[in-house]
Amino acid sequence: MKKLINSVDEVVTDALAGMAAAHPGSLRVDVAQHIVYRATPKDEGKVAIVSGGGSGHEPLHGGFVGTGMLDAACAGEIFTSPVPDQVSAATAAVDRGAGVLHIVKNYTGDVMNFDMAAEMVAAESGIEVATVVTADDVAVEDSLYTAGRRGVGVTVIVEKIAGAAAEEGRSLAEVAAVAERTSQAGRSMGVALTSCTVPANGKPSFDLPEDEIEIGIGIHGEPGRHREKIAPASEIAARLAEPILAELPAGDGHGVIAFLNGMGASPLLELYLMYGEVAKILDRAGVKVERSLVGNYITSLDMAGCSLTLVRADEEMLRLWDAPVNTPGLRWGV
Amino acid sequence: MKKLINSVDEVVTDALAGMAAAHPGSLRVDVAQHIVYRATPKDEGKVAIVSGGGSGHEPLHGGFVGTGMLDAACAGEIFTSPVPDQVSAATAAVDRGAGVLHIVKNYTGDVMNFDMAAEMVAAESGIEVATVVTADDVAVEDSLYTAGRRGVGVTVIVEKIAGAAAEEGRSLAEVAAVAERTSQAGRSMGVALTSCTVPANGKPSFDLPEDEIEIGIGIHGEPGRHREKIAPASEIAARLAEPILAELPAGDGHGVIAFLNGMGASPLLELYLMYGEVAKILDRAGVKVERSLVGNYITSLDMAGCSLTLVRADEEMLRLWDAPVNTPGLRWGV
Repeated sequence: MKKLINSVDEVVTDALAGMAAAHPGSLRVDVAQHIVYRATPKDEGKVAIVSGGGSGHEPLHGGFVGTGMLDAACAGEIFTSPVPDQVSAATAAVDRGAGVLHIVKNYTGDVMNFDMAAEMVAAESGIEVATVVTADDVAVEDSLYTAGRRGVGVTVIVEKIAGAAAEEGRSLAEVAAVAERTSQAGRSMGVALTSCTVPANGKPSFDLPEDEIEIGIGIHGEPGRHREKIAPASEIAARLAEPILAELPAGDGHGVIAFLNGMGASPLLELYLMYGEVAKILDRAGVKVERSLVGNYITSLDMAGCSLTLVRADEEMLRLWDAPVNTPGLRWGV
Repeated sequence: MKKLINSVDEVVTDALAGMAAAHPGSLRVDVAQHIVYRATPKDEGKVAIVSGGGSGHEPLHGGFVGTGMLDAACAGEIFTSPVPDQVSAATAAVDRGAGVLHIVKNYTGDVMNFDMAAEMVAAESGIEVATVVTADDVAVEDSLYTAGRRGVGVTVIVEKIAGAAAEEGRSLAEVAAVAERTSQAGRSMGVALTSCTVPANGKPSFDLPEDEIEIGIGIHGEPGRHREKIAPASEIAARLAEPILAELPAGDGHGVIAFLNGMGASPLLELYLMYGEVAKILDRAGVKVERSLVGNYITSLDMAGCSLTLVRADEEMLRLWDAPVNTPGLRWGV
C-alpha cells in the first residue's frame, strides 16, 4: 500500500488538520472531535444542517460546509460512522434556535448514531431535529452495512438544495420537506474499475481481475450487481443509466439534474467522456437535462470508476440548486 | 488497461464532446478542432488569453476557460502538443482587437507550435501576440520533451492572474508583464506513487515498485530526481518543499500562494493531509501563506501522487488572484 499518509491511525486527524490549514477563513475544524464547522455561524433564527459519515468520500461531507450548504460535518474514521457524542456536539453547536436538519446516508451505523444524537440533543437541550435519510442506489436492495438501499450521490444534491432552503430562512419542516423530496427524486448507480484500499487494512478491499469491472458497486466497495469484462464507455454508461431510468420518478414535464461523479482515481478526462455518453442516452430517452455536475464529489478513496445520479427536479429544486454556495467543494454565485 | 473510454483514438474527441454537453451555457467547444472557447466572448478591446497543451492534465487547460481566466484552450492528443493551425485558429477567433497572450508550458513541442502559431496570425491578420512560457519545476534541468525546466503547477496560477488582468482591460504588455512576473515567482516539485497509463500505449509509462515513490516526477511521467522507499507524508512533504524553498525568490515581506496539486488518482483526503504537512514546513521556515489551493488542477491521467507549487506573490498578484473567476475548474466571486 502506498499512500500519502503519516500513519494509518492518524489519517483522518491529519487530513482534517490540513483542511483547517487550507481554509482558515471559511472553516473552523475541531480536529480532536473530527467536526468541520463554518468559521462564521449563520444568522440566529435560521435552520442549521449537519451531515457526516465515514471518511474516505471527500469532499463529502466536510468539503460541503459553508454558506448555502452545511453548517457542520462529522467525520468518522475511514468508512466508519461518526459516533453519537460527536453528532450531538455538532448539532448543539450549530443550532441557531430554529432547529437542525440531519442529512444521513442510509448505512446502519450512520442511521443509528444520528438517531441517538438527535435523541440526546432533544433530551439535553430541547433542540428540534429533523432527519432525511438518502437511499438512492438502485444497484441492490440491502447490502453490506445497509438495510434497504444505500445512500450515495443524491446526498450531494440534497445537501446543496436543503442548504439553500435553510439560507432563505425557511422553517425546519419546510427545509426537511424539500430535502426529502429531493432525496426521493434521486436514483444512482456506480461502477468500479478497481478496488479501493482502506489504510488500516493495507490491501485492496476486494479483488477485481485486470480486465473486469463491477457494476453496481457501493462507495465502500460493497458488492454490486455483477462483474463483466471492461467494455466501451458507451456500454458502461448504458449499464448505469438504464436501471436508473427504469426507476426514475415520472417527469410531469420536469427534467433532471444529471450528476456524473468520480470515485476518486478516474481522471476528469474520463468523467467528462462518460458524461457525454450519458447525455446521449438521456437525449434518446427524452429526458431533459436541466443542470449537470461532473467531477469527484462523493468518492471511495482510491477507487477508479464513477457513478451516475439523476434527480427529477421541479422548479423549486432547480431554483435552490442555482442559489449561491460557497464551500471548498462546491462554489458558485458568491 | 481499464479506462472509461470508447476507443484509444477517440478519447480526446469524446471527452471534449462530454465537456460541451456538461457546460452548454458557459463553453463552446469546437470538437473537431479540439478547441474550448467561452460561450460568450469577452468585450471588444480587451486582451484575450489562449493556452493549451497535451490532453491528460484536466481540468488544465479546457477547464479554465471562462470569465476571469482563459478565452480559449487548445487540446492536443494525450501528452501531445496542439498543432500550429489549431493554436492560430483559436488565437484569431478570440482576438478582440487588443492582442492575445499565449500561456505555454515549457515543453519543446508546445513552445515551437505556439511560436509558429503566433507568427502565422501576425502574418495573416496582424494580431499582436505575446507569450509567457512557464518553467517552474525545480526537479531537473532539461528532461524528456523539455530543454530547461518543465512548466507545471505555476501555469494554473499564471492563467488565473493573467486572466484577471485581462478582464480589467489592461494592455497586452501589462497583462504579459504580470503573467511573466507570476511565472518567474513560482517553483514546483512533484512526487509519483504510481505511473500513469497513456491510452494509446495500453500500459504504464514506467514501472515503479510496490514500495517505492519517484521524487521530482514530471506531469507526463518523465523521470524525476530519484526513487526512494515510501515514507511518511511529513517526509515526502519535506522532499518537495525543501528544494522549492531553496530556489524561491526572496520575500521582500511578501508571502506565497501555496498550491498542493493532485496528480489525478490520489484521494482528496491525502491531498489535504499533504497540505497540512506543507503548511507546517512553511510555518517553520517563516514563509507566510497568503492564499492556498488544494485539489486536482494539473493532473497526469491516472497517476497517484501530488505536486507542490509555491508562488512568491506581491500585492497585485494577490489582488488578481482574488478577482472573480467563473470556469468549470476554478470558480469564485461570481
